[in-house]
Amino acid sequence: MYYGGIEAGGTKFVCAVSDEHQQIIARTKFATTTPNETIIKINTFFSEYSVVRMAVGAFGPIGINPDSQDYGYVKETPKKGWQHFNFLGELKKIFHIPIVWTTDVNVATYGEYKMGAATNKSSALYLTVGTGIGGGLIYKNNVFQNWNHPEMGHIMVSPMHKDKYTGNCPYHKSCLEGMASGPALEARANQKALAIPKDDPLWNLEAFYLAQAAMTYTLLLLS
Amino acid sequence: MYYGGIEAGGTKFVCAVSDEHQQIIARTKFATTTPNETIIKINTFFSEYSVVRMAVGAFGPIGINPDSQDYGYVKETPKKGWQHFNFLGELKKIFHIPIVWTTDVNVATYGEYKMGAATNKSSALYLTVGTGIGGGLIYKNNVFQNWNHPEMGHIMVSPMHKDKYTGNCPYHKSCLEGMASGPALEARANQKALAIPKDDPLWNLEAFYLAQAAMTYTLLLLS
Repeated sequence: MYYGGIEAGGTKFVCAVSDEHQQIIARTKFATTTPNETIIKINTFFSEYSVVRMAVGAFGPIGINPDSQDYGYVKETPKKGWQHFNFLGELKKIFHIPIVWTTDVNVATYGEYKMGAATNKSSALYLTVGTGIGGGLIYKNNVFQNWNHPEMGHIMVSPMHKDKYTGNCPYHKSCLEGMASGPALEARANQKALAIPKDDPLWNLEAFYLAQAAMTYTLLLLS
Repeated sequence: MYYGGIEAGGTKFVCAVSDEHQQIIARTKFATTTPNETIIKINTFFSEYSVVRMAVGAFGPIGINPDSQDYGYVKETPKKGWQHFNFLGELKKIFHIPIVWTTDVNVATYGEYKMGAATNKSSALYLTVGTGIGGGLIYKNNVFQNWNHPEMGHIMVSPMHKDKYTGNCPYHKSCLEGMASGPALEARANQKALAIPKDDPLWNLEAFYLAQAAMTYTLLLLS
């Protein structure tokens, strides 16, 4: 029995097939281009395997509330061509099997909970820092999901003393993502994050913002 | 059939008895003094009614995780004599009936959910601003409670431009409570909050902090 998984990233897609022992037996990776091209590539890859269930973790924001009209859709995103694309709907036209769908960070959180760092825990919070900042929460053994999905990267933060950077979030400017994402760090350093020396004070600044966010998550979600 | 309710505040206690139609048939109020004196007053009031169940909403922080050693206890509080007091344990010695116990704000949140502003909603967030700032969350028809209870008032906030006040929280100085509680507002105004004119810019400042907190709660708890 085979299962399909799709990690739908804003930069690249990863598709994989596993057997019933969670062993990956096939995997492919391709750049994220237009929705139509992407759907064709997904179809081509999975057509060689008779998968019985599929799970999708997608870059957001996406509609994951089954009671909402935008369920299954990619919502407002800077990613060209993907705005208001009925992603889940298109997948369901091709694959006539049950498909579960949530955000990329919810999928990663759930993975850590089921088979990773949070195995045997009833609560877990997962945070990823890259081009953006996003997070997911396991609450009492389930993915926490209220009206739609948390936006952990967009909370406002108290700025670090002497930090003159004003933030680069297109929506909030100086929210956590605006102050502590990869591009925000690189804008201050004027070089790639990987090239910033380990003893550069910028890493302390990065830690300041992430620790502050961790405090907020702890007070609101984990306490 | 009678039910007992206790609102255990840091300044005053309110005890009430209701019938099975949620009609309050008796009520008393007294200043919060020592734990021993308070327990005696509670006992005296309820001894006239044969209540079959009791609910307590207490000022915090308190232990509300049944799996934790501090369950039923008042924890670290500036309130003299109440630190590490086994409040629920003392009540159970007197009343041999089922007693449920949670924070004052959780009780208020649940009240709004069952019979108030959030009737027929599956999610609700309640925030109170007074001497301190506290909040509770209803998530999928239940009180949200992870390890213990949220501390909504103690999240860090981005300061308002030109606000020179540095905050009065004894733990975090400039967290939400430190910047926007009643005493924080009064410290800036140098007068009682009720005496501050409605058109004073301080109210705009207060709204700035509460709106920022509401944004954070929405992104993390309600989205």
